[in-house]
Amino acid sequence: MLIYLLPWSFFLLTLPHSRAEKICSQVRRMSFIPIPENSDFPLENLPYGIFSTADKPQQRIGVAIGEHILDLHAVAHLFNGPELKNNQNVFQESTLNSFMGLGPKAWTEARKTLQDLLSTGNKTIEDDTDALVLQSEATMHLPAKIGDYTDFYSSIIHASNVGEMFRGKDNALMPNWKYLPVGYHGRSSSIVISGTPIRRPIGQTRPNDAEPPVFDKCKLLDFELETAFFVGKSNPLGSPVPVAEAEDHIFGMVLMNDWSARDIQKWEYVPLGPFLAKNFGTTISPWVVTMEALEPFKVPNYLQDPEPFPYLKHSDDYNFDINLEVSIKPGDSEKEAVVSRSNFKYMYWTMKQQLAHHTVTGCNLQPGDLLGSGTISGPTTDAFGSMLELSWRGTRPVELGDGVTRKFIQDEDEVTIRGYCKRDGLRIGFGKCTGKVLPALPV
Amino acid sequence: MLIYLLPWSFFLLTLPHSRAEKICSQVRRMSFIPIPENSDFPLENLPYGIFSTADKPQQRIGVAIGEHILDLHAVAHLFNGPELKNNQNVFQESTLNSFMGLGPKAWTEARKTLQDLLSTGNKTIEDDTDALVLQSEATMHLPAKIGDYTDFYSSIIHASNVGEMFRGKDNALMPNWKYLPVGYHGRSSSIVISGTPIRRPIGQTRPNDAEPPVFDKCKLLDFELETAFFVGKSNPLGSPVPVAEAEDHIFGMVLMNDWSARDIQKWEYVPLGPFLAKNFGTTISPWVVTMEALEPFKVPNYLQDPEPFPYLKHSDDYNFDINLEVSIKPGDSEKEAVVSRSNFKYMYWTMKQQLAHHTVTGCNLQPGDLLGSGTISGPTTDAFGSMLELSWRGTRPVELGDGVTRKFIQDEDEVTIRGYCKRDGLRIGFGKCTGKVLPALPV
Repeated sequence: MLIYLLPWSFFLLTLPHSRAEKICSQVRRMSFIPIPENSDFPLENLPYGIFSTADKPQQRIGVAIGEHILDLHAVAHLFNGPELKNNQNVFQESTLNSFMGLGPKAWTEARKTLQDLLSTGNKTIEDDTDALVLQSEATMHLPAKIGDYTDFYSSIIHASNVGEMFRGKDNALMPNWKYLPVGYHGRSSSIVISGTPIRRPIGQTRPNDAEPPVFDKCKLLDFELETAFFVGKSNPLGSPVPVAEAEDHIFGMVLMNDWSARDIQKWEYVPLGPFLAKNFGTTISPWVVTMEALEPFKVPNYLQDPEPFPYLKHSDDYNFDINLEVSIKPGDSEKEAVVSRSNFKYMYWTMKQQLAHHTVTGCNLQPGDLLGSGTISGPTTDAFGSMLELSWRGTRPVELGDGVTRKFIQDEDEVTIRGYCKRDGLRIGFGKCTGKVLPALPV
Repeated sequence: MLIYLLPWSFFLLTLPHSRAEKICSQVRRMSFIPIPENSDFPLENLPYGIFSTADKPQQRIGVAIGEHILDLHAVAHLFNGPELKNNQNVFQESTLNSFMGLGPKAWTEARKTLQDLLSTGNKTIEDDTDALVLQSEATMHLPAKIGDYTDFYSSIIHASNVGEMFRGKDNALMPNWKYLPVGYHGRSSSIVISGTPIRRPIGQTRPNDAEPPVFDKCKLLDFELETAFFVGKSNPLGSPVPVAEAEDHIFGMVLMNDWSARDIQKWEYVPLGPFLAKNFGTTISPWVVTMEALEPFKVPNYLQDPEPFPYLKHSDDYNFDINLEVSIKPGDSEKEAVVSRSNFKYMYWTMKQQLAHHTVTGCNLQPGDLLGSGTISGPTTDAFGSMLELSWRGTRPVELGDGVTRKFIQDEDEVTIRGYCKRDGLRIGFGKCTGKVLPALPV
């Protein structure tokens, strides 16, 4: 881990070029593209996304580096390794699905090629002004055509909080919760890219259990702080993925806000689970951070008791130290207030376990399928991943500063999730996942 | 309705051609293609599907007529009406999605064009041997790329049966059931075409509530007798479809077997609904019967009490008299035994209501999305739509004849659903939806 021991930062960029290079050659490779201090996107990250520009509206694959995007459509011919030389076409598509489907050898090779191309000293791209685009001049789109979307419920603190609210502390976790990663099929058509406004839904709720339900706008609109991973390699129908091979099917991660209408959910969800309460919009961040970029941030798995069934058991670490935070910016304010600081490492079930479980009956996963973590809550009251928990069912107003409070999300509120890993001077970030709430349609 | 008063049948086909034509010209149009007695596919049906043949493996759109398929790829240039002349390309695609997305005016025009082309006397196609393929020589494929799949729970008899088994007769229906069409998001990747074998799943179950769960093959494998409809026209995210316009978004129907692992379902489904218990395979019939073909079989809607909310209310009939039956053929037998005779007309919620409800929060539906009815059970014990109900939770063996019985589905059993409408000599059929169960993988 020596490579990460020496801090690196903006000061390197302020040095004369040759001097910066000399320092870096001993510690880590640098890019000829300037990487601002605290950038989410150094040469060690290289997340993939889909972008377009005003002068070239074609949606194409790009890689984030500093404040730029490297246009892979423009440089597809440079992927000449054994895995990719006959698959360069995957970089000319308008989604990441085909690239995701190639599997881990191709992903590793692409990463190495990109790191070489973007390294200081490599002149192949440096002068190719067409291949580099400023992020500020790009519009981002969904990274993949998402065939199916599944959402899990794998944070033990979140599940315990919700259980305690609705069933009391002694019955907080359902009997199945520690035996299997509980999950459900979600709606893929309404997954939208960060920045897309979300309209407050209308629907049936039953505010008073002694009265019939009413038809009204949602009054308990919530966010859910989540991450999600994209499936890479597919498995055929009828062929479960062994947990030992699950990693080969996990391409990379994004931030996700699983917008939830708590009042609609409460009335509709028995016995078949959440439906309309979750299908009016789910926001994801645009850059898919690969599992290779996250490798340095592996931490021990959450201790599982009882021991999981063999089909769910893996001894290697597959948990990640990813800082997550949520902020709210009211429509009439310029200031974001952070309302939650959580971390991915509080997940009880690993992504490998989620994937092995999902396929154990033979269910086929396909490149571009999205699997959500479920709300990720940390152990303290300021680390909870939803307003439901932060305001404890609306009993505890959450302070936004300047006397402004929230129990749930109001119209014109903009909710932003950020995520990043940081260790020994290396920062691997996710960018942001944001969405503003528009008022409901007339009822 | 005079057109349907005179019975027509095979005898017409045995008459000299000119004589048959003369009779038919007074009553209904005939096709130059022979339609066997009791065929599911007369000139009034014309369902759409996707097929390929050994000598032309390209997947293409076809229309079933008698024992033949009209290859629309080959005759796309003949769709010259105002809606389709600039959209002929939709018939050259490998799925029905684009055609579905055109909306009802285009569907009506296509139907009229097809009925003209296939009518006795029209020589345009009669001699074009390339355009007609025998169904027996074709392989069928999924009719559409199914983006999202939703399954409802809209048969009151089924919901009451299941509720009675698990909660007793007094609490059979959940409080929300008569206020909204309960539904959940299903798994679209594992929807397969009729004839695809289904592997018995393995997974977690808890046979004894006093003991921990076990990992084993599913022991309570079931079918669910359902229909499903394909969405045609899309609606944008954030824009609910009013119930009065819902019909424009409903393209046509298929039969569906929502295979279910009851033991896995019982252990996993709290609180987020069915997940692995349903995602190992869902079988649909290959021919999409259009709503126009079903028009003559409209019957009054199920009486709804309490009166639904305005967003769900429509006064016109949108219920259909569709006979449905399920048979089981054990692996070691040549004989199918019918185990259930039900009817679509027992549905409490209409497809228009399901669609309006699905979109009321703003959820966007897309061409090719599939919305299932839920298990359709009739009022008598031989009209129940699942083994769970037919065997009343395994307490009442179902007779297959020759002393063979079933409580749930065994390995090598082939389960077939058939569906047809019949009135005044007109029969509009769905073909069949079949699947054989393969033994589980080793645990």
